[in-house]
Amino acid sequence: MSPQDLIRKKRDGKRFTPAEIDAFVQGVCDGTWADYQTSALLMAMFVNGLNLAEQNALTSAMLASGEHFDFSELDAPVADKHSTGGVGDKTSLLIAPMVAACGVYVPMISGRGLGYTGGTLDKLESISGYNVRLSKSEFKKTLKKCGFALAGQTENIVPADKKLYALRDATATVESIPLIVASIMSKKLAEGLDALVLDVKTGSGAFMQSERDVRRLARALVKTGNAFDVKTEAVISDMNQPLGQYVGNALEVFECLKLLRNDAEAQTKPTLDLSIELAARILILCGVADTIESSNLKIQNVLASGEALEKFRQNIELQGGDAKICDDPEVLLDKHLLKIKIKSPASGYISKIDAGEIGRAISAIGGGRVKVEDQIDCAVGYACEKKLGDAVAEHETLGTLFCRSEAQAAKVLAKLQMAYKIGDEKSPKPKLIKEIIK
Amino acid sequence: MSPQDLIRKKRDGKRFTPAEIDAFVQGVCDGTWADYQTSALLMAMFVNGLNLAEQNALTSAMLASGEHFDFSELDAPVADKHSTGGVGDKTSLLIAPMVAACGVYVPMISGRGLGYTGGTLDKLESISGYNVRLSKSEFKKTLKKCGFALAGQTENIVPADKKLYALRDATATVESIPLIVASIMSKKLAEGLDALVLDVKTGSGAFMQSERDVRRLARALVKTGNAFDVKTEAVISDMNQPLGQYVGNALEVFECLKLLRNDAEAQTKPTLDLSIELAARILILCGVADTIESSNLKIQNVLASGEALEKFRQNIELQGGDAKICDDPEVLLDKHLLKIKIKSPASGYISKIDAGEIGRAISAIGGGRVKVEDQIDCAVGYACEKKLGDAVAEHETLGTLFCRSEAQAAKVLAKLQMAYKIGDEKSPKPKLIKEIIK
Repeated sequence: MSPQDLIRKKRDGKRFTPAEIDAFVQGVCDGTWADYQTSALLMAMFVNGLNLAEQNALTSAMLASGEHFDFSELDAPVADKHSTGGVGDKTSLLIAPMVAACGVYVPMISGRGLGYTGGTLDKLESISGYNVRLSKSEFKKTLKKCGFALAGQTENIVPADKKLYALRDATATVESIPLIVASIMSKKLAEGLDALVLDVKTGSGAFMQSERDVRRLARALVKTGNAFDVKTEAVISDMNQPLGQYVGNALEVFECLKLLRNDAEAQTKPTLDLSIELAARILILCGVADTIESSNLKIQNVLASGEALEKFRQNIELQGGDAKICDDPEVLLDKHLLKIKIKSPASGYISKIDAGEIGRAISAIGGGRVKVEDQIDCAVGYACEKKLGDAVAEHETLGTLFCRSEAQAAKVLAKLQMAYKIGDEKSPKPKLIKEIIK
Repeated sequence: MSPQDLIRKKRDGKRFTPAEIDAFVQGVCDGTWADYQTSALLMAMFVNGLNLAEQNALTSAMLASGEHFDFSELDAPVADKHSTGGVGDKTSLLIAPMVAACGVYVPMISGRGLGYTGGTLDKLESISGYNVRLSKSEFKKTLKKCGFALAGQTENIVPADKKLYALRDATATVESIPLIVASIMSKKLAEGLDALVLDVKTGSGAFMQSERDVRRLARALVKTGNAFDVKTEAVISDMNQPLGQYVGNALEVFECLKLLRNDAEAQTKPTLDLSIELAARILILCGVADTIESSNLKIQNVLASGEALEKFRQNIELQGGDAKICDDPEVLLDKHLLKIKIKSPASGYISKIDAGEIGRAISAIGGGRVKVEDQIDCAVGYACEKKLGDAVAEHETLGTLFCRSEAQAAKVLAKLQMAYKIGDEKSPKPKLIKEIIK
């Protein structure tokens, strides 16, 4: 079938066979499909949808476009976590060492930040010397030695996704559930996993706003994971405010190290709670724990004993980073930054926080990328002091901006202040874990 | 608004403002929209539709992308006919001289054939020396001198349509009524017309098969024409069999010259009937005749008097062609062609003719183009002998193929024979004029 015939079929709302989807993905990869034909079909898929069989076939065809990892020679289960992205979302840095300390391998292939969401690779690069560009064999060696490895996607993993994602980004066809599922799952399936836990975010800092869509996405991800024999669960978690205390690359690593050193505070506690929930579910899916209680306990133990921190130290050393941050997290902080307090314009209770707006403000002063090619400034960021439901007095501090100059501060101060809504009545704090999708 | 914002809007089924449509068409023309963005929006437009206001805004923006003719200095009305294309559809060659002989200017900008439909320019080029590549001033001079001019589209007329049509063709987004209307009407409006009659074909040789769609297209064309102050009507005409007797470039000019010379026969009569109907409607729209009867009579008179033939002779001379064909149409026919009779496989009545299949067969032996860049052979073609509803005996001739070689004949004979269905019962002949849309 020609590109036109395939486009016509989906344009008219018909269903594709797996062979037709294979032909499309192959045509995209070998260049026989022109970009304008690919984008026309992506739009037809966006508007007319793909059913579960088509979603799985697309995932499979994209997976087949590149190389896969095979960890079958390892003596323990292999698992990963994937998050749909948020503001201050730093759980990977805790989950990988915690899960590894419990005897499960975590081959974590991560991305960079774009727009208002951060990326695990950028966070890791705020550790002096840390190398996220590992070859396939370096990645495998690191994984075997310390139980986890963290690296960027190589050119050879799901090349179809690179082409398709770039076109989707340029043609407003990103927010389609089957296209999102195929993009996420083809990359995760290439990791050769036994189990996968998905952290699907909902709220003002999540890329998908509607709770209904988020639930549909979570269900679709879980269905496709299980269809490929990877034990998959999704946790729908709250992103109506930044997660934990800090937003900004070095600051987020700092928060995680404090937690790994058993130095939790009220502001950083949610980061730990969500990380433990996700890690505990991984252990159950891998058969390493039976109940959520026993799984939680296992993780608390490796935290309390320092085994999780030791895993992180080993990993940093193996990936070329400066491991002394494990003993002294303060090393991560740039002492030359200006610290500007954001004040509450009124007395009352914090009724709304636009987490996306906080993410965009930090991005705008160099903490994230507006365009893919932007360089980032690891040090800048934001510390939350008041969260949803907290009482504040007029002029009390809502949070602190860490920036390079008064000019930077002037650029984003009003935006940060506007990100908060102060109400007269105390509203309940949002539940961090909203739903588990199995 | 960025391309993504505009694409997102139509993707989500929202309506565009005229300014948004202008921005799109301008972006397509100046290259700020990438082809893959344009094709994504075309698909979103195809699936989610454009309302009348958007259809008119798109027509207007496309019209504004190039230059227009202005014939306001002429002392008589200016009108044209446009056909959606068919097999043996040769009415332009009669309508232009007939209408011009009745005192209405016809600045006819035509196209070339593609696929199974013929093109007026190709037909005219079967007249030795005839030049269809006129500059704007040559076109105007010819129009003024003999009342009509026939030429191809220059680069400067609706350049947006060239880009958009090429992308639509490659991305299966051709058959969208608002996109078709904007493509046709922007080009016709560039002719600076007072009146326009559209011949919208329905049946086995028409590009749009469903009668419901054809009626919707005709209504949409008429609405947009009138919205731009061009008096517009559409005639829905039958294309369930080739029009008249001949299919093939030189053969079709031969048929028209015989008709202009008042030499009609049973097989060529429908060509004349449809041409007169369309021409008569043009005269009424231009205020040159009051009723369809008086308008018909006017045209019959310029035919009978030879004035229409004289207009054609003048035009051929002005456009560099050999006008002796007006005295001796046989000059057009190549005497070296093989004439192969297509025989009926059974006795009965002709119940179905696949006009598209006949068009494709003639195209396949060089009479038309499979690809845009193909050269054509003007001489080859087909003569219909039996039409829908006619009785035939087994082995009686259905039609005659005019071709270059036995090999060509072998290639298409079975196809031509298969284009006919012979039934046991006499079915009524189809009505040539199905509906008038005002």
